[in-house]
Amino acid sequence: MIIGGSASQALASEVALMLNDKLCSIETKKFPDGERYLRIRDEIPQDEEVYIVQSTGYPQDENLMEVFFILDTLQDMNVTNITLISPYLGYSRQERRFKDVECISAKATAKLLQSMGVKHLVSINLHEDSIIELYDIPVDNISAMPTIAQYIKEEYPDEKPVLLAPDKGALNFAKEIATILDTDYDYLEKVRLSPEKVETKTKNISVENRSVIIIDDIISTGGTIVNAIGILKKQNAKLVDVICVHPVLVNDAVLKINAAGANSLKSTNTLKSDVSVISVATTISDHIKSL
Amino acid sequence: MIIGGSASQALASEVALMLNDKLCSIETKKFPDGERYLRIRDEIPQDEEVYIVQSTGYPQDENLMEVFFILDTLQDMNVTNITLISPYLGYSRQERRFKDVECISAKATAKLLQSMGVKHLVSINLHEDSIIELYDIPVDNISAMPTIAQYIKEEYPDEKPVLLAPDKGALNFAKEIATILDTDYDYLEKVRLSPEKVETKTKNISVENRSVIIIDDIISTGGTIVNAIGILKKQNAKLVDVICVHPVLVNDAVLKINAAGANSLKSTNTLKSDVSVISVATTISDHIKSL
Repeated sequence: MIIGGSASQALASEVALMLNDKLCSIETKKFPDGERYLRIRDEIPQDEEVYIVQSTGYPQDENLMEVFFILDTLQDMNVTNITLISPYLGYSRQERRFKDVECISAKATAKLLQSMGVKHLVSINLHEDSIIELYDIPVDNISAMPTIAQYIKEEYPDEKPVLLAPDKGALNFAKEIATILDTDYDYLEKVRLSPEKVETKTKNISVENRSVIIIDDIISTGGTIVNAIGILKKQNAKLVDVICVHPVLVNDAVLKINAAGANSLKSTNTLKSDVSVISVATTISDHIKSL
Repeated sequence: MIIGGSASQALASEVALMLNDKLCSIETKKFPDGERYLRIRDEIPQDEEVYIVQSTGYPQDENLMEVFFILDTLQDMNVTNITLISPYLGYSRQERRFKDVECISAKATAKLLQSMGVKHLVSINLHEDSIIELYDIPVDNISAMPTIAQYIKEEYPDEKPVLLAPDKGALNFAKEIATILDTDYDYLEKVRLSPEKVETKTKNISVENRSVIIIDDIISTGGTIVNAIGILKKQNAKLVDVICVHPVLVNDAVLKINAAGANSLKSTNTLKSDVSVISVATTISDHIKSL
């Protein structure tokens, strides 16, 4: 049984269809004072394995509260075999303390989800692997890169683009896709030329007259990507496309990236956005099948 | 030690001042992607009794998440003696199930607060007494009516207004204040005159040429109050004022109530609003002193 939260209704429907699984009917609304109403319309057998699909990006607090309410209601129905599939897991950026005494919001979120009855968590390309250690339950951090690789294969039938990470932290993503597609990959590296002068350029290969796809896990303000596009253009790349997993895309990020000269900007649908054209439904359904 | 949440900063400050207690310094902000950051700046001894003051009205989910984050951070500091003072407790309207299978949001909220470490809950004029039974911890449901009585005494030095409940459910509030002020009180009752005709009027006393104060716990859309004002005007009340505890006041409630002919509309500051002129700081600090 699949339950789709408000933030991931279309994705949940797609996953249910792929698995030939039942999509649970829930009723949600807001009262005039802003309070959330939630009702589970379908009967669910007590021993049923239930998968809640709900990304917890913006508005994070609302999406999380909806999950807590679904969890509490399921437990009133004596359903306890509950997996939360949160393709984009909110509050994953503060998983440790930089100053005394900060709230480790990723830990607080873990405690909330576990207290309310999540028995198993599945997420896609978590921002930090160490998030997993904040949970006492099993956490599967699955990768959307094979799905992105498949998309690139279909969209670029004639040539093999260079997969480029905008910094070393994203290198593994570019490498994962390049390995599947058997193509080149690289990352941008800052080189200090003199005490005053820093140059950023591709580490190993030349992008001159080649198509380049910048790959990142999350794009938020887009600053890193805008920078990367400028450098690749200066190095005479033929075309620069941008693909990410999680399109957080705050403020005018889409405009900034396009204005910087991106040929296209695409992402998966872990979050809803104008550019969420690559569905992670197979990523999720293949993982559920493997459990 | 008093900690003020974003929704109740001024009230928390006032309470701390009255108790001559320390107001804890916290830092809160939102990242560009909408995620909440929270940091407790002051040191807090482990055996300290901490009172978090935070109403959880609109935006309910954000105000609750802030409380959860404060609770988690306090526990990281090994502070566990924690009372939550939520003058207006959100999600108090659905404390039971009317249809299969609704989320009992008041129960889910109770579970969340307790899981995150609240040891004692204090609220003001809870919408339903039965909320208390949803908690395993002590819950004090204190009344703002003595504070409202004091306000009326100062504002109406020359005459004793009639205290009027707009329906029988609110009668106890009018009675509580009337008893303190030694004045008349009544409520509006629906009387069926014929199968087609229903008349609503004051149950026991005449309001003709008298000043009337309508008393209610919560005003949301204002429909009940607008109705009551119309009836009192028809019965030739001299002046009709309106006072409530919790000014939820959704949409155009303030305009509607004033347009209906209210002489004034006032409330306590359990929630922030244009009409929150009666402070419950004494209500809260007197209660803390009594613990």
